[in-house]
Amino acid sequence: MSAPVIPKTQKGVIFYTNGGPLEYKDIPVPTPKPNELLIHVKYSGVCHTDLHAWKGDWPLPVKLPLVGGHEGAGVVVGMGSNVRNWKIGDYAGIKWLNGSCMCCEECELSNESNCPEADLSGYTHDGSFQQYATADAVQAARIPAGTDLAEVAPILCAGVTVYKALKSADLRAGEWVAISGACGGLGSLCIQYAKAMGLRVLGIDGGAEKEKLFKQLGGEYFIDFTKTKDIVAEVIKATNGGAHGVINVSVSEAAIEASTEYCRANGTVVLVGLPGGAKCKSDVFNHVVKSIHIVGSYVGNRADTREALDFFARGLVKSPIKIVGLSDLPEVFEKMEKGQIVGRYVVDTDK
Amino acid sequence: MSAPVIPKTQKGVIFYTNGGPLEYKDIPVPTPKPNELLIHVKYSGVCHTDLHAWKGDWPLPVKLPLVGGHEGAGVVVGMGSNVRNWKIGDYAGIKWLNGSCMCCEECELSNESNCPEADLSGYTHDGSFQQYATADAVQAARIPAGTDLAEVAPILCAGVTVYKALKSADLRAGEWVAISGACGGLGSLCIQYAKAMGLRVLGIDGGAEKEKLFKQLGGEYFIDFTKTKDIVAEVIKATNGGAHGVINVSVSEAAIEASTEYCRANGTVVLVGLPGGAKCKSDVFNHVVKSIHIVGSYVGNRADTREALDFFARGLVKSPIKIVGLSDLPEVFEKMEKGQIVGRYVVDTDK
Amino acid sequence: MSAPVIPKTQKGVIFYTNGGPLEYKDIPVPTPKPNELLIHVKYSGVCHTDLHAWKGDWPLPVKLPLVGGHEGAGVVVGMGSNVRNWKIGDYAGIKWLNGSCMCCEECELSNESNCPEADLSGYTHDGSFQQYATADAVQAARIPAGTDLAEVAPILCAGVTVYKALKSADLRAGEWVAISGACGGLGSLCIQYAKAMGLRVLGIDGGAEKEKLFKQLGGEYFIDFTKTKDIVAEVIKATNGGAHGVINVSVSEAAIEASTEYCRANGTVVLVGLPGGAKCKSDVFNHVVKSIHIVGSYVGNRADTREALDFFARGLVKSPIKIVGLSDLPEVFEKMEKGQIVGRYVVDTDK
Amino acid sequence: MSAPVIPKTQKGVIFYTNGGPLEYKDIPVPTPKPNELLIHVKYSGVCHTDLHAWKGDWPLPVKLPLVGGHEGAGVVVGMGSNVRNWKIGDYAGIKWLNGSCMCCEECELSNESNCPEADLSGYTHDGSFQQYATADAVQAARIPAGTDLAEVAPILCAGVTVYKALKSADLRAGEWVAISGACGGLGSLCIQYAKAMGLRVLGIDGGAEKEKLFKQLGGEYFIDFTKTKDIVAEVIKATNGGAHGVINVSVSEAAIEASTEYCRANGTVVLVGLPGGAKCKSDVFNHVVKSIHIVGSYVGNRADTREALDFFARGLVKSPIKIVGLSDLPEVFEKMEKGQIVGRYVVDTDK
Repeated sequence: MSAPVIPKTQKGVIFYTNGGPLEYKDIPVPTPKPNELLIHVKYSGVCHTDLHAWKGDWPLPVKLPLVGGHEGAGVVVGMGSNVRNWKIGDYAGIKWLNGSCMCCEECELSNESNCPEADLSGYTHDGSFQQYATADAVQAARIPAGTDLAEVAPILCAGVTVYKALKSADLRAGEWVAISGACGGLGSLCIQYAKAMGLRVLGIDGGAEKEKLFKQLGGEYFIDFTKTKDIVAEVIKATNGGAHGVINVSVSEAAIEASTEYCRANGTVVLVGLPGGAKCKSDVFNHVVKSIHIVGSYVGNRADTREALDFFARGLVKSPIKIVGLSDLPEVFEKMEKGQIVGRYVVDTDK
Repeated sequence: MSAPVIPKTQKGVIFYTNGGPLEYKDIPVPTPKPNELLIHVKYSGVCHTDLHAWKGDWPLPVKLPLVGGHEGAGVVVGMGSNVRNWKIGDYAGIKWLNGSCMCCEECELSNESNCPEADLSGYTHDGSFQQYATADAVQAARIPAGTDLAEVAPILCAGVTVYKALKSADLRAGEWVAISGACGGLGSLCIQYAKAMGLRVLGIDGGAEKEKLFKQLGGEYFIDFTKTKDIVAEVIKATNGGAHGVINVSVSEAAIEASTEYCRANGTVVLVGLPGGAKCKSDVFNHVVKSIHIVGSYVGNRADTREALDFFARGLVKSPIKIVGLSDLPEVFEKMEKGQIVGRYVVDTDK
Repeated sequence: MSAPVIPKTQKGVIFYTNGGPLEYKDIPVPTPKPNELLIHVKYSGVCHTDLHAWKGDWPLPVKLPLVGGHEGAGVVVGMGSNVRNWKIGDYAGIKWLNGSCMCCEECELSNESNCPEADLSGYTHDGSFQQYATADAVQAARIPAGTDLAEVAPILCAGVTVYKALKSADLRAGEWVAISGACGGLGSLCIQYAKAMGLRVLGIDGGAEKEKLFKQLGGEYFIDFTKTKDIVAEVIKATNGGAHGVINVSVSEAAIEASTEYCRANGTVVLVGLPGGAKCKSDVFNHVVKSIHIVGSYVGNRADTREALDFFARGLVKSPIKIVGLSDLPEVFEKMEKGQIVGRYVVDTDK
Repeated sequence: MSAPVIPKTQKGVIFYTNGGPLEYKDIPVPTPKPNELLIHVKYSGVCHTDLHAWKGDWPLPVKLPLVGGHEGAGVVVGMGSNVRNWKIGDYAGIKWLNGSCMCCEECELSNESNCPEADLSGYTHDGSFQQYATADAVQAARIPAGTDLAEVAPILCAGVTVYKALKSADLRAGEWVAISGACGGLGSLCIQYAKAMGLRVLGIDGGAEKEKLFKQLGGEYFIDFTKTKDIVAEVIKATNGGAHGVINVSVSEAAIEASTEYCRANGTVVLVGLPGGAKCKSDVFNHVVKSIHIVGSYVGNRADTREALDFFARGLVKSPIKIVGLSDLPEVFEKMEKGQIVGRYVVDTDK
């Protein structure tokens, strides 16, 4: 393959202050460090976290000015001198965790997401809302050749996150998983991963349209919270004793507390969303007598990413997206703030 | 061994209504069912749970009238026709879990404590505050010959409980365990089991006397909550990043919530006490980003019991007790209610 | 339900000496002990182990005279005084493990198959080649109402065995399992359980008919050992690095040794068959440098049985059987000895 | 700290052909790559593997010419531009695994030792038999300040190897571990780590002197193979049913096969040595019926290294060494070949 021509400048969306204007404009193409790839980003998913990064309403400070985005799919066009096992033309993905210290206890055990020095794409490192982005070569996702780069984009964060959450629930095929908030962006991917893992899926969400989607994606038992009086009792009945695992995609405090009650003895409740300031509450008596586990799951590591991509590449998980131009990003953010987003938006960096 | 002579009546402490008189008097010696042992109880520990059973202030209803007690150590003097692998003269222990259905999912996987039909000594089945008690032969504890029956009594519940809690924390030798409430009855056993498992022990409790006891039992780092301003910060500093595991012997809601903050990333917080109505609270953001586990641990199964007894039999765990007569039980309950108990009381059923 | 009428005598197949005549004749209906069920056996699978029991060529001595059979499916018609949670009319299954001591370390941890005092149906306890058989109520399999009793029979041993072997391989959905001897009685069930668990299945067996069956059952990659020169190399190539797990249904020493070579680093080789006198061999250098695991898997416990039955009841596993009369058993044994059996034979105890 | 003065040349032991002369002479000081440290090696342990590297009798080809050695302890004196979280003056260790690809499945899951592209100190990368050596900054061992650099050297390979083997046996405190070859260089460290982990230690070795050492190091039960007729029977008796885990430090085929027989049901046999061409054999019937695990363990990862060093730093493991000069290395190799080595030799690179 002949070396790609890399321009000096490119289009990107950048902001200089939290909550300030999102400027779509020409910015310099960055230069990769010895350990980095330069990726020609083709498409990038848009995630709620991007909104938090822009608004700056999380306890972690963001880099400023910032190019956001952490679900970027593209092609390797350059790399630093220390990079191994990548070549020009490979498909590569930019994900939430751009890099980590590789020397703390968490990194040693492949829990890089939990590294205190974690470097985050579109948060502490310029991300995928630009045509050319740098990414740590060890952490960058290896996307199989032939993959649809637009559809795969949301797998890089949303897909990995729910897949890891399911792994954290430590279930075996044939057991029941309840998904609280089953039919949103994360939930609809979660249903599909759960099915591919041989689990029986119970979903909790509201409305007939959601129920229809749930059944289409392979869900087995749906509870409509707008109609059900006693969700705890219904889950316990439907699963003959309680769900073996629960994935709390919904971040409602009440929903989380209920999940600790309909979880089966020795089962696992997984927390996966990041609502600012919310508490997880459980009744100590019930927690002890049923010996349940409540665990936090935070994105995934390199192996989780590879595995989540593999399920997608084998066609077991579909990612329903809506493609708009990168220049439309401010509008997407506006809709997101108003809660008007249905499905997952992906931006085309060429438009 | 010649067959022991079993009397028709015996001394026991019985009550007929919750909170009613605790009567020390002659009661009939029970007859074992086909699956049961008849145990000549020599000594029985007195546990806070016995007070709850008498008062009836837990959500689970108690059998009435009731002979309480679930830390009974004695000698097998009879057995039903279906009993296997026990012989007259064996040492046997009565523990909290007297029996279970043996056919539910929990029983199948050796989680008999979590069986919905669990039969509880001194709660739903007459217990060890009498000279002769029946016990399910499968669940009864096998106490090694030559063991001191008075000292071993508290191991049957308090010892097993903390040992199981430590196992539930899923730690490896060399890691830090924090014990919140380190120097009470449960905590002081917990320190010793933790040491025997190769763990590094940090204790949290109040007062110089407690600190002295902590160090005598092999603890490494003590935090006096009456003197320390920021317990969370001090635990994190002392353990170089947070405790890998926490055993909450203390049932204070604030102490439990703090333990979720000083727990290391990917570490485990164990709940072990049963305070009525208390909640376990954690900050969802912290729970997820550090990916911690909060697990309930409820007494132990047959293997946990055998193992906890083995550590005691090998001299690695000492059980400091105070022996009084069975007839003194009402006074012990009175002290317990007033919070005047130091160490563990054991009643001698002959007195 | 009115109490069933139980006859005094019944038809059964019995032998008095190892290798002696298999007599189909009238024998007394047994009486259940306090812990036992009396099961009206409707159908029983025929397993190679039954042949070993008759011939007496295993190191374990058999009871004599003996009624063989350990894949019996029927209806509860009576029970002893100590039995819990069964009622007349329930469907019940007789499986290889009839009972165990319930007090050794293995039993305590739900590894009852490994109990040194294990009582075996059709081996040390009269089995399912009769119309009425006794079975320990704790170990007897609970067959869901409405199940086809003929088809479920082989699940009770063959199904549970391969399901447990797959669990012993400790794989997660999306990983490769190689089945050595993929298309025989055990192997064809193994393919289906593996698929239901989300695994990718590679099968090794010989001939075009086997390949066809393999693909029909959902297998992904077939290696015909009659055509392939280098099986090790082909498995490694097809699985992109080696199988994560291997189930050795074949008991060939050479096939087992090969499986240790095509197993992926940190993967697991499972031994499941019981060839008399065979050795498992691995190259120590390879075993260490690739850090592989070689584990033995021996039938399954109560939970494994329940789970294996559940996959069958949900229609995820089909059991292709050929039904003959109980009186035809001697002929079935003859065919089995000559290696003429295709699929699984099930005897109807009424014929 | 002022920057250390680094010479252009140094003393080292180098060979140009396998089995050729071991030359102690002036060689250039290497320059670290962007990802590497330059370590001033003070002491280096001498391991049997060094002999294999020199002789070239393993299936893996060595780099030539080669500076051997992979148990080097020293001080950081330089580093490449991409190195994080190291500073001049830190204590650093050179270990067997110098580096790995960081992108394969094994590396992703912290099994870097099993990486197909593993770079090995003193084998494919110049090692610690020189005064200044380069080492990958991610893999280099972090030795706590204040550690005795001579005594710690053997921990970097021998210590980590036995510690990891014990972890691979997956034991809990209170269980029995048998060490086959208990009193050699690896075995004597293994006894100490096992004790620190709360295990009960049974050792197998030959001679009264060995028995004495075994007891001094904390071993509980010694079997002298020169005196015992039936080792399998004696282990089973001493451990009341078989060892829960076995560490095969001895590489005798017969000893390994015996270990599969005295291993308890559901227990684990660990292979840790690398004898060229040897086979591990087990009886399939026994392997299955007892459901044992035979696992390979190959050095350790970064976490294992940190943990093994921590036990040493806390004084729980002593490393008995004999210090000679680097120039004496050829003599040490000669003794090693003749089997005349007692304990662990460490070379002082200044002499």
